[in-house]
Amino acid sequence: RHLMGIIELHTVLRIGDLTWLGSRSLQPLSVWASSTGATPSEEMNGTGNLMDFLDEPFPDVGTYEDFHTIDWLREKSRDTDRHRKISIKSKESYWELIKSLLDAWSGWVVMLLIGMLTGTLAGVIDLAVDWMTDLKEGVCLSALYYSREQCCWTSNETTFDDRDKCPQWQKWAELMTGHSEGPGAYVLNYFLYVLWALLFSFLAVSLVRVFAPYACGSGIPEIKTILSGFIIRGYLGKWTLLIKTVTLVLAVSSGLSLGKEGPLVHVACCCGNLFCSLFSKYSKNEGKRREVLSAAAAAGVSVAFGAPIGGVLFSLEEVSYYFPLKTLWRSFFAALVAAFTLRAINPFGNSRLVLFYVEYHTPWYMAELVPFILLGVFGGLWGTLFIRGNIAWCRRRKTTLLGKYPVLEVIVITGITAVLAFPNPYTRRSTSELISELFNDCGALESSQLCDYVNNPNMSRPVDDIPDRPAGPGVYSALWQLALALIFKIVITIFTFGMKIPSGLFIPSMAVGAIAGRIVGIAVEQMAYHHHDWIIFKNWCRPGADCVTPGLYAMVGAAACLGGVTRMTVSLVVIMFELTGGLEYIVPLMAAAVTSKWVADAFGKEGIYESHIQLNGYPYLDVRDEFTHRTLATDVMRPRRSEPPLAVLTQDSTTVEDVETLIKDTDYNGFPVVVSRESERLIGFVQRRELTVAIKTARQKQDGVVSSSVVYFTEDNPQVAEACDPQPLKLRRILNLSPFTVTDHTPMETVVDIFRKLGLRQCLVTRSGRLLGIITKKDVLRHMAQMMNQDPESIMFN
Amino acid sequence: RHLMGIIELHTVLRIGDLTWLGSRSLQPLSVWASSTGATPSEEMNGTGNLMDFLDEPFPDVGTYEDFHTIDWLREKSRDTDRHRKISIKSKESYWELIKSLLDAWSGWVVMLLIGMLTGTLAGVIDLAVDWMTDLKEGVCLSALYYSREQCCWTSNETTFDDRDKCPQWQKWAELMTGHSEGPGAYVLNYFLYVLWALLFSFLAVSLVRVFAPYACGSGIPEIKTILSGFIIRGYLGKWTLLIKTVTLVLAVSSGLSLGKEGPLVHVACCCGNLFCSLFSKYSKNEGKRREVLSAAAAAGVSVAFGAPIGGVLFSLEEVSYYFPLKTLWRSFFAALVAAFTLRAINPFGNSRLVLFYVEYHTPWYMAELVPFILLGVFGGLWGTLFIRGNIAWCRRRKTTLLGKYPVLEVIVITGITAVLAFPNPYTRRSTSELISELFNDCGALESSQLCDYVNNPNMSRPVDDIPDRPAGPGVYSALWQLALALIFKIVITIFTFGMKIPSGLFIPSMAVGAIAGRIVGIAVEQMAYHHHDWIIFKNWCRPGADCVTPGLYAMVGAAACLGGVTRMTVSLVVIMFELTGGLEYIVPLMAAAVTSKWVADAFGKEGIYESHIQLNGYPYLDVRDEFTHRTLATDVMRPRRSEPPLAVLTQDSTTVEDVETLIKDTDYNGFPVVVSRESERLIGFVQRRELTVAIKTARQKQDGVVSSSVVYFTEDNPQVAEACDPQPLKLRRILNLSPFTVTDHTPMETVVDIFRKLGLRQCLVTRSGRLLGIITKKDVLRHMAQMMNQDPESIMFN
Repeated sequence: RHLMGIIELHTVLRIGDLTWLGSRSLQPLSVWASSTGATPSEEMNGTGNLMDFLDEPFPDVGTYEDFHTIDWLREKSRDTDRHRKISIKSKESYWELIKSLLDAWSGWVVMLLIGMLTGTLAGVIDLAVDWMTDLKEGVCLSALYYSREQCCWTSNETTFDDRDKCPQWQKWAELMTGHSEGPGAYVLNYFLYVLWALLFSFLAVSLVRVFAPYACGSGIPEIKTILSGFIIRGYLGKWTLLIKTVTLVLAVSSGLSLGKEGPLVHVACCCGNLFCSLFSKYSKNEGKRREVLSAAAAAGVSVAFGAPIGGVLFSLEEVSYYFPLKTLWRSFFAALVAAFTLRAINPFGNSRLVLFYVEYHTPWYMAELVPFILLGVFGGLWGTLFIRGNIAWCRRRKTTLLGKYPVLEVIVITGITAVLAFPNPYTRRSTSELISELFNDCGALESSQLCDYVNNPNMSRPVDDIPDRPAGPGVYSALWQLALALIFKIVITIFTFGMKIPSGLFIPSMAVGAIAGRIVGIAVEQMAYHHHDWIIFKNWCRPGADCVTPGLYAMVGAAACLGGVTRMTVSLVVIMFELTGGLEYIVPLMAAAVTSKWVADAFGKEGIYESHIQLNGYPYLDVRDEFTHRTLATDVMRPRRSEPPLAVLTQDSTTVEDVETLIKDTDYNGFPVVVSRESERLIGFVQRRELTVAIKTARQKQDGVVSSSVVYFTEDNPQVAEACDPQPLKLRRILNLSPFTVTDHTPMETVVDIFRKLGLRQCLVTRSGRLLGIITKKDVLRHMAQMMNQDPESIMFN
Repeated sequence: RHLMGIIELHTVLRIGDLTWLGSRSLQPLSVWASSTGATPSEEMNGTGNLMDFLDEPFPDVGTYEDFHTIDWLREKSRDTDRHRKISIKSKESYWELIKSLLDAWSGWVVMLLIGMLTGTLAGVIDLAVDWMTDLKEGVCLSALYYSREQCCWTSNETTFDDRDKCPQWQKWAELMTGHSEGPGAYVLNYFLYVLWALLFSFLAVSLVRVFAPYACGSGIPEIKTILSGFIIRGYLGKWTLLIKTVTLVLAVSSGLSLGKEGPLVHVACCCGNLFCSLFSKYSKNEGKRREVLSAAAAAGVSVAFGAPIGGVLFSLEEVSYYFPLKTLWRSFFAALVAAFTLRAINPFGNSRLVLFYVEYHTPWYMAELVPFILLGVFGGLWGTLFIRGNIAWCRRRKTTLLGKYPVLEVIVITGITAVLAFPNPYTRRSTSELISELFNDCGALESSQLCDYVNNPNMSRPVDDIPDRPAGPGVYSALWQLALALIFKIVITIFTFGMKIPSGLFIPSMAVGAIAGRIVGIAVEQMAYHHHDWIIFKNWCRPGADCVTPGLYAMVGAAACLGGVTRMTVSLVVIMFELTGGLEYIVPLMAAAVTSKWVADAFGKEGIYESHIQLNGYPYLDVRDEFTHRTLATDVMRPRRSEPPLAVLTQDSTTVEDVETLIKDTDYNGFPVVVSRESERLIGFVQRRELTVAIKTARQKQDGVVSSSVVYFTEDNPQVAEACDPQPLKLRRILNLSPFTVTDHTPMETVVDIFRKLGLRQCLVTRSGRLLGIITKKDVLRHMAQMMNQDPESIMFN
């Protein structure tokens, strides 16, 4: 439905992929703002290169214009050509052989570089976020650049109470007034907390607005679109890389309800793009470049969670479009290097790769599957609520005045977040710390309020196997604070995601799930403790045993909520598995993830990324959408019945002037060439761009080519023309002799399959050898959206 | 090269996929032996169904004959049709709605059933193998059906020496003569060991030969071929399932150098095929069936190693051809259910999912990467040696008298194996026990000879962090026994794999690598202990520290060797990761796996499975082979210049008699239909099978259709024909109006890509709308093999 709205608004959509404005005109200050400025200069640049065209039969990146779709088959065949040339040359001399070997290894080199840079950036971001988050509350006197943990780590206090209040670390009120307690200090701390938050978020949004509008958001919808073969110039540029890294730190530190995981994937892809430019193999081939970007996305998730295998599967399941086996290996390599580099930097100071390292000491029991599945249902409902709410809000932002004041919006949301977050200890701290605490099992040494259980003084067990105990007052006060935090997070996240700052939604989603899970976990635990004679507990929970692990419930809840929002399944479970390192808990996680996906799918098939892709109107052909309608190619192809006939060239009767008029009057991306207008038998397809260049060059360089010269696409030299005046123009070399064709009776499901699997831009439609029309990727997308609207129920049966 | 040989031998290859005899005629007693017998009955069966043809426009499985290739696009479109019908019907009544929901859920039900049956079978196989392997040496007196471990587990001896010699367990000599020591007892034990081995292997090979010839081998090459869209009737049948399960137990118990992992994948696929037949959604659609089989393969590996994620990746990386995301989720589900079922059966008695559970207590150091990479090189060399040796031996078996005596061959190899294996304690026991021991770190409680280190009496450390110690005499004697075992395993495995019994090569490959790795590990450990002042050890190995874990070397070596043979990378590392459960060791494993792949790839691109596919001449279009030659469709299409013109039908001028003659004279799989012989403009393609049936039915049922009736494929009713005599036969309904076409100038790399990605059977070649020829999957395969032969070096640059 969203896609259609945009298509109706912009009637500039034509045959070929010339214009896909998306909703550019509706977004005065948006990601598109810069592109409007950039496009003319891009075109100028393109024109400047025209003269080199004949020297290089395949012009490079310039071949595709901004916001255009690439032709995967063509990119692949260009790479094979390059490959073949190198392999022939390599037999000539040792130097060429070495060069060819270097070329063969360049893929691995790029992966190594991406892994190292991504890991380093992730480490730097982690350290900076730690420091700046703590800066909102206080400062380390012994070394200003220390975060609270680092500050207190170096102190010698070893008891637990002292570790929490180490003297080197001072809150702002204590530092300024000397008092650390009392209402005055509280108000001052509160005020400074909000002030710092506002400062960070103002800086972030200003930097994004001024320097790199593309640096906002999570970036995953756009990366999915780019990987599917769309060109968005500058989206993965150096400038975006720099600004996104800096503003990500600011945005996360400001305490907004957002995470760094999605943006890290964007940062990793920017790194990938950066290193592509070092090797002409990748920089000059949009298809090969996308292989590298897929691997970079894996490296991004790998460092975001410390989960290399999960990263590869995330790239495969969620982000990538074309993922050959070779890319699988390379992604894995890049993800490992990145994780390894991050471990070498060791930002969490614990030699662990993972963000939330947990170790549970008790198994789970079959009966617990019931609450786990309930958490799955909750996750699915949260996913639906979040996607609907967020998309509605983003659409409102696009279409109303709201969108004109992105800085104000960020400031207001930050203000609200900070004001509401400070009083509640569970929202005041950073979200990842919160998740970490919720995931943790209560050991004997835990000082958290959540672990304030009534201890049995006679207990003399080892520290890691504490039996279930009755909850103390701390747990009950923690419970209602968590409930408030849950409501707050649910509401504020809907408004936060999509603002003009870098914002990921993994962490907020996981936080929502972890809070809900922990609450459920404590409830089950207390029920099991107080009622172990109930039939449901009888079989597995003896008194004095450690039956229920509330931390595991938090983890299952987090997985369920993340699954509901993103619709990941395998990669989600693998990421969670890598976080815990235990195969034991795969079944609960899987049960929750699958339930959550089913529940959420019942309300709408799209995950948050697909919804944003639709909202922004990107030409993305989802591999998961199955097309099951009975339409035929003839129903989709242009021209429609009411439209003027297809603009074609003939192989031997069009003059240069005719061609020039056709180019001027239309903005199609290319033209089919037929034997004659009468027979309409297709012989090939010629790109608009190559045609323009060829004619221009011929007019300048080739004597005798005038407006009335006939353009020949035939193979044999026309005998008559040799002597004739004016000189003919032979253009067979720019003719693509193998255009993709289908017959008019081909079912659209087959056509969709072909477009998807072969990555076509366009496809010609014939009937018994006669050219009837053309289908472009956009025609396919539009048709799919139309069909989906007609029969929205069909999604149930998938 | 292998492929070509077969093609030259069998000139029956024609247009269409009618005959692909493989090397049937050369293998009198081979997997093919039964098919020769089965084919006529299949055809009879097919003819019997002809009468139902008109009632059911899409005939079921019968559409494809044995040893034919399926048409993926057609299968997909048939499924969409079915889907559409159900979804329309579901609106009619509640009952239909429920039926449609059941249909939508049947995929998950099948997965659940597959997982449960595969897990159960794996558990039963594990238990039976344990018992029968021990039966070769002795018997449990307290309960005959107990394996040694179960027997001694129930005894009350708790000290380590006693546990090894529990009184309930008696060796044969002890039981028969009363003496457990001395040369007489040794000889008697030796004799009975060999006898049991011969008995088991004779039973195995006889069962395979008599009941299910398809049950032999690992099955993975055939499953890869089947999944790529080939039909081998009975390969996944119930009979094969039963016999393969039974003979697998016998073969593994006989002590031959083979494993159960590959055959378990075959068993799992048989289960998948079995449950497919319960649901018409899967049993009547060869494409959907293959989705289920892909998931079943994942479940097979999942139970083989206790590695569900590794199983899914193995299916994705190694086995599957068409692997949509939906299959990814379902495979994961099936793999989890299977692993969970296996855990519930608990065959190893330790609640562990995994075959070789290990826990290491020390990290690894950068400098150790050097021996790890050397192990990778060893693995690559072993992979090359094994593949070359095994293929040469298998070819010899095919072409010489050897192949005529498969029972004798198995008996002889078993005899040699048993005679050589008994004296060496490392080869006498089962290979998986050996690997398990080699992987293990020497704890304080280890009683193995390999852990016979000289202990420092002053040592008072915790049990799991023992410093490096000098090796004792036990270690040195173990070392040379291991060296002998290594040579023995290397040689015997080459001859064992490919015999006519179920045989996997994961375990023997891992054993070779684990032995080599352990030897290297002990060498490095002793070097580090005795020379910790050397510059390479100085930085990380202080005296008295636990620096080197020889068990880790064994694991790295196993990964390297397995990688060299199968060329897996990601799935291999993930399987190994799931075995150890520690992310810490991913980098060593990855380094070894990638090195091994590179080294092995330098000698030949194909893994053992691809080599066997080539050897058997299956029509398998590998997704990994990149086609980089400059040939065009016109160079590959049939008819070649010297051949008679393409057999075509015209749309309105062929008589019934002409068609019947054409069908009788040719054995093509289908015929293109053109407007007229003069214009040669293509309008569609008609399947031979459907044409035969339609004409036969028309002759019987439709009045006035005689030999001189004209066959019309046109849309409009021919006006003239209405009144005319004889009555025309209208066959437009069986005409496929959307045959796949490419132009003659299409580069073959694009054609290969299209065949691969869309799963075509054939593709028509046109030039400016005129039909020129046809390319079948076999033409493509033949061309690729030809090109590969011309330029074998091109593999280097991939």
